[in-house]
Amino acid sequence: MNKLPNIATHFSDWYNDVIYRAELVDQTPVRGAVVIRPYGWAIWEEIKSLLDKRIKETGHKNASFPLLIPESFLKKEAEHVEGFAPELVVVTHAGGKELEEPLVIRPTSETMIHFMFARWIKSWRDLPLKINQWANVMRWELRPRPFLRTTEFFWQEGHTAHATKDEAHEEVLMMLQEYTNLAENYLAIPVVTGLKSESEKFPGAEKTYTFEALMPDGKALQMGTSHLLSQNFAKVFDMKYQDKDEKLSYPFLTSWGVTTRLIGAVVMTHGDEKGLVIPPKIAPIQVIVIPILKKGADNRMILEKAQNLAIELRKSGIRVEVDADESKTPGAKFYYWELRGVPMRIEIGPRDFEKGQVILIDRLGLSKEAISFEQLPQAVIDLAGIVQKKLFERALKKRDSQWFKSAKLSDFAKDLGTKGGFYQTGWCGKEVCEQELKKHKATTRCLLDKKSFETCFHCPEASKQDVLVARSY
Amino acid sequence: MNKLPNIATHFSDWYNDVIYRAELVDQTPVRGAVVIRPYGWAIWEEIKSLLDKRIKETGHKNASFPLLIPESFLKKEAEHVEGFAPELVVVTHAGGKELEEPLVIRPTSETMIHFMFARWIKSWRDLPLKINQWANVMRWELRPRPFLRTTEFFWQEGHTAHATKDEAHEEVLMMLQEYTNLAENYLAIPVVTGLKSESEKFPGAEKTYTFEALMPDGKALQMGTSHLLSQNFAKVFDMKYQDKDEKLSYPFLTSWGVTTRLIGAVVMTHGDEKGLVIPPKIAPIQVIVIPILKKGADNRMILEKAQNLAIELRKSGIRVEVDADESKTPGAKFYYWELRGVPMRIEIGPRDFEKGQVILIDRLGLSKEAISFEQLPQAVIDLAGIVQKKLFERALKKRDSQWFKSAKLSDFAKDLGTKGGFYQTGWCGKEVCEQELKKHKATTRCLLDKKSFETCFHCPEASKQDVLVARSY
Repeated sequence: MNKLPNIATHFSDWYNDVIYRAELVDQTPVRGAVVIRPYGWAIWEEIKSLLDKRIKETGHKNASFPLLIPESFLKKEAEHVEGFAPELVVVTHAGGKELEEPLVIRPTSETMIHFMFARWIKSWRDLPLKINQWANVMRWELRPRPFLRTTEFFWQEGHTAHATKDEAHEEVLMMLQEYTNLAENYLAIPVVTGLKSESEKFPGAEKTYTFEALMPDGKALQMGTSHLLSQNFAKVFDMKYQDKDEKLSYPFLTSWGVTTRLIGAVVMTHGDEKGLVIPPKIAPIQVIVIPILKKGADNRMILEKAQNLAIELRKSGIRVEVDADESKTPGAKFYYWELRGVPMRIEIGPRDFEKGQVILIDRLGLSKEAISFEQLPQAVIDLAGIVQKKLFERALKKRDSQWFKSAKLSDFAKDLGTKGGFYQTGWCGKEVCEQELKKHKATTRCLLDKKSFETCFHCPEASKQDVLVARSY
Repeated sequence: MNKLPNIATHFSDWYNDVIYRAELVDQTPVRGAVVIRPYGWAIWEEIKSLLDKRIKETGHKNASFPLLIPESFLKKEAEHVEGFAPELVVVTHAGGKELEEPLVIRPTSETMIHFMFARWIKSWRDLPLKINQWANVMRWELRPRPFLRTTEFFWQEGHTAHATKDEAHEEVLMMLQEYTNLAENYLAIPVVTGLKSESEKFPGAEKTYTFEALMPDGKALQMGTSHLLSQNFAKVFDMKYQDKDEKLSYPFLTSWGVTTRLIGAVVMTHGDEKGLVIPPKIAPIQVIVIPILKKGADNRMILEKAQNLAIELRKSGIRVEVDADESKTPGAKFYYWELRGVPMRIEIGPRDFEKGQVILIDRLGLSKEAISFEQLPQAVIDLAGIVQKKLFERALKKRDSQWFKSAKLSDFAKDLGTKGGFYQTGWCGKEVCEQELKKHKATTRCLLDKKSFETCFHCPEASKQDVLVARSY
């Protein structure tokens, strides 16, 4: 098999190659739609299971709302429909007839869910209402890229309603914190959090918080968002309820979501010249056991021991597989599992077997040690912790090396276009200056709670606060 | 709140009422689309988690295929498109433009998945290929009924490819067995399995196996199906591969699925005049703890003990909640949780507390006992087993009391239309006789591996084998 494109010089080609070779995805004949293959889907299932647990532990309940939404629903909130209209996928015929009103495939479910909330929230006793759904959504894409931007994608969308704005705001920040925890402590991806500017926020929201990562090629990736919707949608959907003082009030709403894009972030952040590197905490296969077999020899003892070790490791909660294929060389297997980013490998050959040991190796090349059968489960758990920590540290170091402070766009415009990176700068807060960034194919990624610059990156006016600027996916 | 409609005399009204009152579903403004509310979705999550585990343990891997399928794909298999054309939901516009070719929302994914299989299966080494997907699908419904028949529904669809027909057939039967196990040992619903007749089988399949349950109102419910597709689709999608003899061959395909309809089956099979009864093994809440509080008294000790008992029960893997709402009477709580079918209830009042005990009661009224705090976890586990067993036995007894043997349609036609039930009879195997059943709004549900009758239920020809006839949902 050909080598992967050079990750240092051809990052984009590397990404487009590795996701197919590692069998995360495949192309389909439908524009912007991909197949997520078993290995890719298994990574999503790990992420989903971790996040779902936290969503439930923080008091939310899963439910399921319709895929199709009447076109008129989207039009109820002016900014909302303006934001999504160009990307809508529209059903006009069903059951052999033309529909009286077209239905759109949900690009997001605020409108449908708020229609239902209006039926369910009648009294202050019905609040807070905290719902989540795991679903597929659709936004038509002219330049799709698997995981990063596809017409159909998978996500969770949380939707909550609260009696006070403070409580809604707390919810928005709590979920942002949950997302940060997922990104940093599980995906091993450092992120920066902050508010989106007025022009970059979610259509219809009062405030949008984002968490942003920087990919090794210097482009920012929006990892997910948490919106304070406040009362806009509540008023549009006539979501009146009787409050504690027996007056009619509107609740304060939030919504928040992350998507299968997180898989793309993991691929880009941790991958190397050999292929993927999946952080142990989300790896569908944390350890691959490779018996070193001799042609013509009786390999039964080795194969049986490999299977037994796997059973022992599973008892300790470790996700492990044995590659027992006798038609492949160990070298071919190393190559295959390294490409797929399995974070740890166990080798067991005839000599190891006699000595009652295996060789335990990690995907980053941090450690290669002989470990006795008895000590193996603990050694794997320890090594998983080391690899997980190292991945985050390495990504943080890389990210910090690409984070620059610069007072004026005229100074950093060139670097922005060549080496990329986060550019922390001052901003007057006006959209006219923000628009200047478009000329350099960049945007504001998020506002920072700092004020390190006297003036705006573009105009001579005073800076209101720091802003992070970057090109983005 | 009004009483539920009489379940014995107004079964259909009872169903349509209880599913809303117990908050399993809600209506939406989109034809045939429902919201599955948190309690309904939690039941689906329990079923899904049990079945997903078995699907994986039997060697299948989950993946995800596109929601939208080119219309031309469906037309490749003549019977297939004929079967699904009247129910298709069609996307004609996207991204503000009319599409060159319409896309249909998957009514099932054979065509898309087989298109991909043709890319993936190149050698005998790629077989067997065993894939499953959990997904939403859509078939336009003019007379929707929540869970039983909705335009959008949720299911798993397994799709496999094998080198030989025997192996494919084994797969079909293995999954049918898994489904039977799920139905009988978890949902507590007795089922009968067998082949569908030629006219009732899946469009494009060689053989369709079904598992059928009988609802208390005497109507049959198809619980799910497992299809031997053989090589039809493989040829249509040019799924050629090099076999062990280095010749080009077509694989033998299967597909199998169950849907959210299973929730409807649980509601109908076990419900009673008080509402739902959820079998303990799939109940999102297996035990509700109700502290018996005194107005004006200091209830803190009781409330704290209730919470502590719940924590202890959770440690034993029991799904338990505490209803600590001080604004509701115990009676109102009993009513509420009985309506929702929580299979067991724990009451703890001041006297119980002093004696170091609780009262443990089950939803079927089988048992009501004082249990000491220490013995509670084991007592709950034991009672769950008793309730689970009783539910199945009760359903089996009911089903068997509605299973009749009759030689001639003319003899059982009247009963079929009044009291309903399964009618086991003889059949010549010809469609012209099968069509006679339509006059009585009935169909053949499945063929039985028996021959108890000399002649066909309609014509004087010899019976080939027994067939089960019923009206159905």
